[in-house]
Formats: sequence, C-alpha cells, structure tokens
Amino acid sequence: MEPLTTAVTSAKANLPADAPGSTAPRRRGRPSRPVLSREGITAGALAVIARAGYEGFTMAALARELKTAPSALYNHVASKDEVLNWVQDDVNETIDVSGFGRDPWDLALMRWAHSYRDAFAEHSPLIPVIAVLPITGAPHTLAMYERVAEGLRSGGWPEDMVIDTIVAVESFVLGSAMDVSAPEWIFNVGDRRDLAPTFADAVAARRGSGRTAADDAFALGLNALVAGLRATLAAAQAARH
Amino acid sequence: MEPLTTAVTSAKANLPADAPGSTAPRRRGRPSRPVLSREGITAGALAVIARAGYEGFTMAALARELKTAPSALYNHVASKDEVLNWVQDDVNETIDVSGFGRDPWDLALMRWAHSYRDAFAEHSPLIPVIAVLPITGAPHTLAMYERVAEGLRSGGWPEDMVIDTIVAVESFVLGSAMDVSAPEWIFNVGDRRDLAPTFADAVAARRGSGRTAADDAFALGLNALVAGLRATLAAAQAARH
Repeated sequence: MEPLTTAVTSAKANLPADAPGSTAPRRRGRPSRPVLSREGITAGALAVIARAGYEGFTMAALARELKTAPSALYNHVASKDEVLNWVQDDVNETIDVSGFGRDPWDLALMRWAHSYRDAFAEHSPLIPVIAVLPITGAPHTLAMYERVAEGLRSGGWPEDMVIDTIVAVESFVLGSAMDVSAPEWIFNVGDRRDLAPTFADAVAARRGSGRTAADDAFALGLNALVAGLRATLAAAQAARH
Repeated sequence: MEPLTTAVTSAKANLPADAPGSTAPRRRGRPSRPVLSREGITAGALAVIARAGYEGFTMAALARELKTAPSALYNHVASKDEVLNWVQDDVNETIDVSGFGRDPWDLALMRWAHSYRDAFAEHSPLIPVIAVLPITGAPHTLAMYERVAEGLRSGGWPEDMVIDTIVAVESFVLGSAMDVSAPEWIFNVGDRRDLAPTFADAVAARRGSGRTAADDAFALGLNALVAGLRATLAAAQAARH
C-alpha cells in the first residue's frame, strides 16, 4: 500500500535534497544528493529500464543505479508506480502539441504523431510499459492529451469519438516507434526464397528514398491513417446532421 | 556463433527424442523427454517470456523451465535466436491469411489485421520482441508474408510499395495488441480534472458499444487506415498511368 504522504513526497522530490526549504531527511555526515531529485530519479529509472527492461526495473535496482539505499530512495518517491509516472511525464513533456489550436486538426495530429514516435523511438524499452500505464498523476501527460482533445473537438470531432481516435493514432505511433529499432535486414528470406518469392521481390524493390525503411513505412501509414480519419469524420458529421 | 549444424538440429527437433528415426543424442539410462521437441521448447519459451519478459529469457531460464540441463537443451536447438524464431513462427502460423487470393485486398488485409492483433494480444510480452526479430528461418512466417504480398500485388499495389504497406499495418496491429492489455481506467484524470477538462469529458463520453474500449479504437483505426490505403493505391496508380 502506498503511504498517505505521496503528494507531499512528490512535491519535495522536485527539490534537490540541499535546496533551501527542502525538508527531505538528511543523514548526518553524508553529502547531499541532488541525484535524488525528481530529475535524477527519472534519469536513473530510464537507465535501468534501458538496460534491464521493465521486468528488471525494481526499486532495489533503481537504488543501486543511484548509489543509494532503497530506504533513502523511498524518502523521495512513494512507489515504483510513481517513478514510472515521472518517467512517462518526462518523455511526454517533450512531445510537440504546438499544432493543436493553430493548424487544422489533421496537420496538428501529424505533427504530434511524428514527434511522439521520435520521442519513444529513443526510449524503446519504455514502449510496452507506457502503452498500458495509467496517466493519473502525470500533469504534463494530462496537458498533452488536453491539447489533442481540444484540437480534435474544435476540428469538428464528436466528443464520443475523440478517445478512440487518439488511441488509434497512439497505437500506430507506438508500433512504429518499435519498428525504428528493427534491423534493416529483418525481412531477409535467407535461403528460403522458394517459400516467399513475391515477398522477396517486394523486399528487393523497396524504394531507396534516402530515408530509413522505418521512416518510409511510417510516412505511408500516417498519411493513410490521417486521410482515413478525415473520411471517418466527414461520414460521422454527415450521419449526425 | 551458431554451429553449422543448425538446420539439421532444427529438423531433428521437430521429432520427439524417442520418435522412430530420431537421431537426437540420448543419455544412457535417462527417460526420453518429448518436452524437448520443438513444440515443447516453444511452449516453454512462451512461458518464460510471459513470466520474465524478453530480458529474463535466457537459455538457462528455459532449461530450468523444461527441467533439463542447458547442455541437454543445446542438443535440440542451436541458440536463443533459434528458439525465438520458433516462437515467432508458432504464433504467426495461427494468423488468418485466408482472405488473400480470395477476397479483395482491402477485406483480406482487415481479416489478417484482426487475426494478427488477436494472436499477439494473447502473448503481449512477445510484441516488442517480434517487432524487431528477423524472419529468416521461420517458414510459416515467410509463408504468411508471401500470401500478404501476393494479395497486395494482385490487388494492384506497385511492387515497391508492398513492404511499406505491410509494415504500416503491422505497426498499427502491434500497437493495438499492446493496448488490449491496458486497464480500462488508463485515462482516469484522477483529481486533476482542472488540467484536462475537455479530455476528461471525452473519456466520459466514450461510446459504450458493448465491445471493449480497445476493440472500439482498433475498429475505428483499422477502418480509417484501410480507407486511407485505398486512396493511397488509387493515387499511386493514377500517377503511374
């Protein structure tokens, strides 16, 4: 069970342990540890997840990464879920929502999708974690979704279709972010061309666009998805008027 | 480095160790171990990955799961990569490609995508592994891709767009398969409705279709993606004629 002091602990964790006004517990004679700020803990968690995956991400492993004791870590963050929340919020804060409220919804959505894919392609071990992590208590994440929801609503999307649209785009984005890590030879048929001659020819014919194969597939898919969403919106508006 | 006998080892592993004609090494006085057939090893690998994730999936862990020694395991499979290949092939063999060559390409693609999502939703820890795993040496996987490539080609898709189209659909499918595991309350704004009022209203307005939220988002996204691909194909054909 999480202690009831979660909110207070979180607020304190935004301050380095030696910041004026910090009330974080300090051990007599030990140096201060700005590494136990929210930023330091988040960076440490990203390092552990990159190395050991989500399964290897424990508070004990995080404490080792930060060269501290688990008990000291718990003075700054309430639980593993709270750390994951910070990690999610840290990455989501970098995603570009600037198009919403300025550009047409479809252009804003494409800008968001590109930036979203790039952010998680850099942190691929996070992808399966983030895909199922509740957003409760992640303020930058909430602010991101608010901008997207506002942009879709003002673009004419019915309220009851907004979340499905967001989830559909996110599913494509997160799948595409995984694909960025795939080796270029992932579709090499090896010595079994006999089993897949049409497929092997298509692999050989793949366009050399100067971009990576993942970029090409993402561009083709995102253009198609957004074009299809325009048609979906038009049909929904026609049916409701 | 993999031993040069990989292919032979693989073929043998399709037979239980006590099958007539099997030349798999047997230890004197020990009982036969059908668990070390290809099917048994594949099932054991799925169990280890489900429990410990990809990071926890080692040949030592697999040997423990199968209650055998790593050295005995290596008599039946050459490497961890070969085991992953079997796992991939085992799941991909269940995916429905029956629409290709029978139905129009867009309907066949939707049938494939539905079946593909369902197969990996049941094995969600595999998703980030499969997304980057080369298909070389996985015959059912090659056969699946051949059917898809043939279906797209005979539906009029230019050869140099086939792979990008497949990858785009797969990215959406694998992202959607991850979403199946998300808790229904993933978008609960908690006590911070002030940060995301439009978004919170959209979450509340989400249609109760009788299906799950993940099913609704998948249906909306797949319909949009395939509609957009139809338009992409029409534009490509117009540009080339």
